[in-house]
Amino acid sequence: MTEYQDLNLSPRWLHGPGPSDCHPRVLRVMATPSIGYTDPEFLQMLSEEQELLREVFQTQNPLTLPVSGTGTSGMEACIANLVEPGDNVLVCVCGYFGERLVDIATRYGANVARIDQPWGAAFEAQQVADALKQRPAKLVAIVHAETSTGVLQPLAEIAQVVHNAGALLLVDAVTSLGGIAVEVDKHGIDACYSCSQKCVGAPSGLAPVTLGPRAVEAIQQRKARVSSFYLDLALIDRYWRGDHVYHHTVSTAMNYALREALRLIHEEGLEARFARHRANAEYLWQGLEALDLTPHVPQPYRLPSLTTVRLPDGVDDAALRKRLLNEYNIEIGGGLGTLKGKVWRIGLMGYASSRERVTMLLGALDKLLHG
Amino acid sequence: MTEYQDLNLSPRWLHGPGPSDCHPRVLRVMATPSIGYTDPEFLQMLSEEQELLREVFQTQNPLTLPVSGTGTSGMEACIANLVEPGDNVLVCVCGYFGERLVDIATRYGANVARIDQPWGAAFEAQQVADALKQRPAKLVAIVHAETSTGVLQPLAEIAQVVHNAGALLLVDAVTSLGGIAVEVDKHGIDACYSCSQKCVGAPSGLAPVTLGPRAVEAIQQRKARVSSFYLDLALIDRYWRGDHVYHHTVSTAMNYALREALRLIHEEGLEARFARHRANAEYLWQGLEALDLTPHVPQPYRLPSLTTVRLPDGVDDAALRKRLLNEYNIEIGGGLGTLKGKVWRIGLMGYASSRERVTMLLGALDKLLHG
Repeated sequence: MTEYQDLNLSPRWLHGPGPSDCHPRVLRVMATPSIGYTDPEFLQMLSEEQELLREVFQTQNPLTLPVSGTGTSGMEACIANLVEPGDNVLVCVCGYFGERLVDIATRYGANVARIDQPWGAAFEAQQVADALKQRPAKLVAIVHAETSTGVLQPLAEIAQVVHNAGALLLVDAVTSLGGIAVEVDKHGIDACYSCSQKCVGAPSGLAPVTLGPRAVEAIQQRKARVSSFYLDLALIDRYWRGDHVYHHTVSTAMNYALREALRLIHEEGLEARFARHRANAEYLWQGLEALDLTPHVPQPYRLPSLTTVRLPDGVDDAALRKRLLNEYNIEIGGGLGTLKGKVWRIGLMGYASSRERVTMLLGALDKLLHG
Repeated sequence: MTEYQDLNLSPRWLHGPGPSDCHPRVLRVMATPSIGYTDPEFLQMLSEEQELLREVFQTQNPLTLPVSGTGTSGMEACIANLVEPGDNVLVCVCGYFGERLVDIATRYGANVARIDQPWGAAFEAQQVADALKQRPAKLVAIVHAETSTGVLQPLAEIAQVVHNAGALLLVDAVTSLGGIAVEVDKHGIDACYSCSQKCVGAPSGLAPVTLGPRAVEAIQQRKARVSSFYLDLALIDRYWRGDHVYHHTVSTAMNYALREALRLIHEEGLEARFARHRANAEYLWQGLEALDLTPHVPQPYRLPSLTTVRLPDGVDDAALRKRLLNEYNIEIGGGLGTLKGKVWRIGLMGYASSRERVTMLLGALDKLLHG
């Protein structure tokens, strides 16, 4: 008989593109025993979790909840519910997750048009306006924080352009929510999704989403049913906010964790949290430059939560990351897609965004690169 | 500023349709810090988890893994991958989850035919044979353990009939896996899905699935892409067993929990575990009859993991379950669908299937019903 040992993983310092390290309070709360999915105490807890989610999304949207899957399930839930076969969709692509939006919208039967920027650049509002003038769309999808490139996409003007054209705006906030302002109501973002395991600070497994009034109306006016039952937001919303009728058994442990992570954000305060992410990123950027490492993204568009830095000439990507993991227990990410082998991705997310962590990481990189 | 308190839920004894209580080792392991999704130690752990899953599914199928969602995501993943628009599908419906199979297959564009049995009965192989003679199908879907009715569906003959007709057999083992034998290879079940939070003994959040060679071939021969990206099993399998290329960030905490729950099953042994579920169910059935309560399902088809029992005349369903919860911290389930208000659903699943729990539950029911 095969023997399976006690789980005994090396403790890692997580500075890749996610997951990030969880605060000890988040880890501990998951050991809480399960409770029934219609238990009044559980429903009360879910309701608090929704309030806390609205706070971090900076929204009053009633339809704000975590989908029971990872960030990609949030992306797919938004598209599946907002897009019907034959709908025109415009996707702004300047990285891996823009490509994924194209893929999923296509699978759900949309007529997808795309505009492209190089991987490492952001979009100007005028490009979106021009594209919508050429061909109107029901939905425009854009990534706020591109996990593959480290670009922070400004949204204020683009949101105006999209709304002036009568389209809905879908925003990917997977690598921004909880670390950088995601101003859903201020910008009138119609639908926004994220994940639990980056700046929000819980393990992977839930995908927070929020939908505004225009998006809800678009769902109510659908002609075709949503082809995914699991991601049918009207049914999921009915469990969370309506008569709590069964749709699926939401995870106790994951929702305990997300509520605790959101409670930590609430206690810290959004402004203080964003300032912390910003200050530690700047400290990292200075340190990288002192090590002769060049950030891939120019300053105004650099993400505080995820920095892409160009591989120095002559350095073996995989070998260095392996040494960092084996000798220092530090994880950083390799490049994705067209940036594979060209950049590293260094995450400073949630609990792992701290001055001491940056100091440790810079010290380890210095040792490995310059002996 | 709103104050959000420490999570402080009442400890419950979970004897509804799921979730069930987790063994303390399962709860504890979730407090393990996160680790990267391509960390060699994590990939090694996932590989062990797959071995353990094959053991409980009684299969050698290489494509055996937990989908990152609840049981319903496993149901949807199997249908989304095995069915193409226009395919003929036959669904056997004798409860709520048979209805759900019809719903999802219809959403994915199948031409669905159905055969029905009363809620509380099982199917005979001849009914399936007759239906397939009338109209051949690519896929036949049936529920092994109907969570809404408490019926255990024998599969041996039906599997033969389905294969003789050249169709694939899809089996819902949500309420059987880990508590009752699910003999995937012995019966040649082509695709089977379950959940983590019932007899398997972890919290909700993962959906174990296994696909046999004919099902894998059907996926390889698809003309249309799978319309769900999140549930595209070829891509998910590539992460788990192939070159580990990124598809989504699988949950650390949930997979720690599932591996530990499966390790407990491995240590107990399948035969001993099934015998325990059976013995405690029989002890429950005797006790219910002594309390003048009538099981809804006749003996040979009664599920050991979930018993439906008819409400006695004059008893207020909701009021009694509320008292059970408030005065004894015991959760049992109400009826679902056509059995709402007519039966209770009493689960004895995984760690919660024990003689002392049955004793406690019967004692509480006796007090509340007969004072």
